[in-house]
Amino acid sequence: MTNGYLGKSLRVNLSDEKVVVEEQPDDFYRTYMGGRAMAAYFLVREVAPGVDPLGPENKLYFLTGPLTGAPVPGCGRNSIAARSPLTGRFGESQVGGYFGAELKRAGFDHVIVEGQAARPVYLWIHDGQAEIRDATALWGLDIVATQEAIRAELDDHLVRTALIGPGGENLVRYACVMNDVNHAAGRSGMGAVMGSKRLKGIAVRGHDHVPIANPERLRACAQKIIEDKKTQEQWKRYGTTVGTSGMNASGGLPTRNFQTGYFEEGDRLSGDALNESLLIDVGTCYACLFRCKRIVEASSPWTIDRRFGGPEYETIAAFGSNCGVSDLATVCKANELCVAYGLDTISTGVAIGFAMECQERGLLSERDLDELDLRFGNGEAMVRAIKMIARRQGIGDLLAEGVMRAAERIGGDSSNFAMQAGGQEFPMHMARQKPTLGVAYAIGAAGADHGLGFHDTSLTTEGPGMLPWRELGILKPEPLTQLSISKVRALIYGQCWRTVVDSALVCLLVPYSRTDVVELISAATGWNTSLFELMKVGERGITLARLFNTRQGFTRKDDRLPDRCFQPVPTGAMAGASIDRGKFEEMVDAYYEMMGWDPATGQPRRGVLLELGLEWAVP
Amino acid sequence: MTNGYLGKSLRVNLSDEKVVVEEQPDDFYRTYMGGRAMAAYFLVREVAPGVDPLGPENKLYFLTGPLTGAPVPGCGRNSIAARSPLTGRFGESQVGGYFGAELKRAGFDHVIVEGQAARPVYLWIHDGQAEIRDATALWGLDIVATQEAIRAELDDHLVRTALIGPGGENLVRYACVMNDVNHAAGRSGMGAVMGSKRLKGIAVRGHDHVPIANPERLRACAQKIIEDKKTQEQWKRYGTTVGTSGMNASGGLPTRNFQTGYFEEGDRLSGDALNESLLIDVGTCYACLFRCKRIVEASSPWTIDRRFGGPEYETIAAFGSNCGVSDLATVCKANELCVAYGLDTISTGVAIGFAMECQERGLLSERDLDELDLRFGNGEAMVRAIKMIARRQGIGDLLAEGVMRAAERIGGDSSNFAMQAGGQEFPMHMARQKPTLGVAYAIGAAGADHGLGFHDTSLTTEGPGMLPWRELGILKPEPLTQLSISKVRALIYGQCWRTVVDSALVCLLVPYSRTDVVELISAATGWNTSLFELMKVGERGITLARLFNTRQGFTRKDDRLPDRCFQPVPTGAMAGASIDRGKFEEMVDAYYEMMGWDPATGQPRRGVLLELGLEWAVP
Repeated sequence: MTNGYLGKSLRVNLSDEKVVVEEQPDDFYRTYMGGRAMAAYFLVREVAPGVDPLGPENKLYFLTGPLTGAPVPGCGRNSIAARSPLTGRFGESQVGGYFGAELKRAGFDHVIVEGQAARPVYLWIHDGQAEIRDATALWGLDIVATQEAIRAELDDHLVRTALIGPGGENLVRYACVMNDVNHAAGRSGMGAVMGSKRLKGIAVRGHDHVPIANPERLRACAQKIIEDKKTQEQWKRYGTTVGTSGMNASGGLPTRNFQTGYFEEGDRLSGDALNESLLIDVGTCYACLFRCKRIVEASSPWTIDRRFGGPEYETIAAFGSNCGVSDLATVCKANELCVAYGLDTISTGVAIGFAMECQERGLLSERDLDELDLRFGNGEAMVRAIKMIARRQGIGDLLAEGVMRAAERIGGDSSNFAMQAGGQEFPMHMARQKPTLGVAYAIGAAGADHGLGFHDTSLTTEGPGMLPWRELGILKPEPLTQLSISKVRALIYGQCWRTVVDSALVCLLVPYSRTDVVELISAATGWNTSLFELMKVGERGITLARLFNTRQGFTRKDDRLPDRCFQPVPTGAMAGASIDRGKFEEMVDAYYEMMGWDPATGQPRRGVLLELGLEWAVP
Repeated sequence: MTNGYLGKSLRVNLSDEKVVVEEQPDDFYRTYMGGRAMAAYFLVREVAPGVDPLGPENKLYFLTGPLTGAPVPGCGRNSIAARSPLTGRFGESQVGGYFGAELKRAGFDHVIVEGQAARPVYLWIHDGQAEIRDATALWGLDIVATQEAIRAELDDHLVRTALIGPGGENLVRYACVMNDVNHAAGRSGMGAVMGSKRLKGIAVRGHDHVPIANPERLRACAQKIIEDKKTQEQWKRYGTTVGTSGMNASGGLPTRNFQTGYFEEGDRLSGDALNESLLIDVGTCYACLFRCKRIVEASSPWTIDRRFGGPEYETIAAFGSNCGVSDLATVCKANELCVAYGLDTISTGVAIGFAMECQERGLLSERDLDELDLRFGNGEAMVRAIKMIARRQGIGDLLAEGVMRAAERIGGDSSNFAMQAGGQEFPMHMARQKPTLGVAYAIGAAGADHGLGFHDTSLTTEGPGMLPWRELGILKPEPLTQLSISKVRALIYGQCWRTVVDSALVCLLVPYSRTDVVELISAATGWNTSLFELMKVGERGITLARLFNTRQGFTRKDDRLPDRCFQPVPTGAMAGASIDRGKFEEMVDAYYEMMGWDPATGQPRRGVLLELGLEWAVP
């Protein structure tokens, strides 16, 4: 290899306990890079249409990128992918921590898990070796206990882990995978896929250096970020909770199952409120100085163990305003339980908020609810519901299916307020405030995902990461609330770039410019790359993910939003706002057409496949 | 203006003698840049379908780019555009010299000429002023005499000119415009458009500096090129004649109207042969150290005046091997006459070669030929034919129409060997050796144009400007003679990049890397641009030029090559080579599809127009 990659993939078949090492050529990395784009490549190549996401034929990919393990801030990330049991679509989730870098130090860029173990197992990867080990004794343990047990068994307290908890074991469709206890690969239900394979976790330890083609160039590029103590201090102070108050003030804080965007008790959920109450420390990822992770602790009214970390903005909104709960300790307890059980906090919060609305509307019987008083604002019931979901008890068994399936079973008009797109629950952004994000939710390969529509969460003013993006040819700032052709174009370019970031695997929150990221990738790999080449990698990733979905039978008619998005917001700064349905459909068409997809079917046309070098994918 | 542009366009209507100055905003430049892309913009916006190319409704654009006049090598270029009288299509030609830089120094980025003068005129532009002046006395003069007369009249020997000769006056469909006497805007017949407007020339003089946003950054970027004395020496030694021998040896030197690619007397036409005989000096363009222009002189058997410069490779092949003429002095005389009369040497040479083959095949009667013995190899007849073309005398009147129209009149099977595509005569490259270039000829907005297929003239080995182009994601070298999807993709990316170069207006021959050009544009304009943004400008230019053509009624069926391209080459290193017709059609389809054009009609689809920010151009 002439670049910073190792070039090695570990392929593990749990059915026959076969472990093989595969080598990949340089051009393969340069074409599909890593992370999200490479996940899309592997899924189209290796996972046939119609495969049961929870069956042995589904495959689970742990993927690094060229920047995973680079010794500069923001490079502690990896990606996990499979056909999603939540959506049936392209499933992929990104996660920080230390696991990804350690995997590279152990000699592998990828781990591909196939088949299904006969009994619970975990995978132990160390310095170029891999073995499948019994995990019968670990089955049922929470994330912290599992990591402790594995470290004790291997007699190495520096072993890094990617684990599932009871949520994944019990096939909760939005179960997540936890890196190093408190870093969540939250979305798309990758934990359930892991559970279906009876794979409790992957433990990894390596002693090599992560190969970097040009370490001096890498360091020089990161120097500005490393020296930016002011921004580091801001991230350390608030992490992602920085925006909670502003979201509420602007009418964009999802409240009571997205009924509105203003929570009257929102001040109690703010970043300052957390700092002044439960926050006791901050955490970080591999080599990162930005320390955005919250660490909370409490002893009453809830006991909250600091080892489970603390909540992100998304978690605070999902269990706070979205469930009508204003008590931060209860929100933090909900977070702790989700970490312990390995549940995605967004989908869990939205599922409970949905159940609360169903109960208030009389769509759930008392028997359904099993004496659980799921009114909005009942934090205690919310906490109990999380446990029931993880264990698939009572109403929890229904909610563990996600709101799309739950609404199908509950019936009535419940699907109108089942806040999901493509089968995945909405993140904590109001599509009626950010209608372009609504388009992204509807079309998103992984369903509703703020990752791939992120650009529109903060683009009101010019600044880092915000419109206009002149170097992408997006020359004009445009209002957040506008839905237009030019916004859809910005969405596409923003998604291509985001796919680059998530394929290189560098953290979006660390304030590298696009130019910096091009330079970081060049330094890490030795490629003389460019923003053009990278944007094509991003476009390739999006197109392949789409292709995966259309091959699974999804079409244009599956790209939609729940009715609530088309009804006016009742209160707050966005009062009266709704998405115009005709305009929305027009923009979905425009998105397809701009991407080179057939607007009648939503399928990528032959032309775009050829242009992206995907001749092999032409039907 | 925050950038290096002036922001001013001069619009001159010759019918009513109205002169207005228009101002353009920064985003307009950033979207359409200049040169070729901006030409396409103006033509789609301002020239309606069906307009007579030689009538008053056609418009003629003199366009600079962000690098025109930048005080570094390769930046002495401008572009001239109109609906082409030769092809009926998008017509555009690029030219070096000093005129473009002088136009900027006089305060204008563009001159737009509309209408038709009642009598011969010229335009005098000086320091922000413009006036229409009588040119009755100049009509009929050759290029050198015209420039001398204008400089005398204006009493300023530093006036720069863009002129037509008798060729343009007499509406020879491939008449060119000459900058500063011996720099030709050769292709597309822009001189005939100028002649139809009775505009003998534009004279310009300015005393301002050309505005550059960041002169130090510009200079720093060019420093490597400025110091590269070795390459400068190579260009000075041979100019474009460097490749003549190699073209012949590789079987790619068009010979006797492209019947074959090997000329048995080719050695007599080589760069060394010219250096050892007629070459007496070299010339250059504004601020350029590469001095690639040949200057020749002779007194017998022909008198050749050094003021008319000397021949490029294209000219040597067109009048040499392509007409079966091996005498360099005769070739140089042919060049001198084309300069004097303002005729494109490529189209003139191909038209005469075509007539030679028609005569040999008995398709022209003696009366047609007017006692001209147009056998291959008869240099004297060739020289006489040039004069007859310029004056539209005898057979010259027919040949002045170009080979497409001539073949229609001559009939028989002559269209099979009328070497043109889209109505424009082939440049001096063998499509059977470089079949991807053949696709470029067939599809090219301006018909056969080595400018827009240039990448494939020299891509056999890795090196500057050659495949692979890793930063464009073209990762593998591929044989010159191969026709494949991946070559078509390289063609498209190569054309997008070439359109950037021709819109920024920097010389392709000066060995700037793509990274250098991005940097030069950033320095000149103050834009924080990128290879991605620039490639989109290129794609926008190509798409708009295509749109201009489809609006003129051209469709997929007009994108074709003469039969000769599908027949085996009889001799030389390429003996036996031909283009497979089925494969060719398949590649044309693939090109359309990759560009987002409808393969059934060749029209740009709505999707690509929206993606490129061309909402205004959606039908």
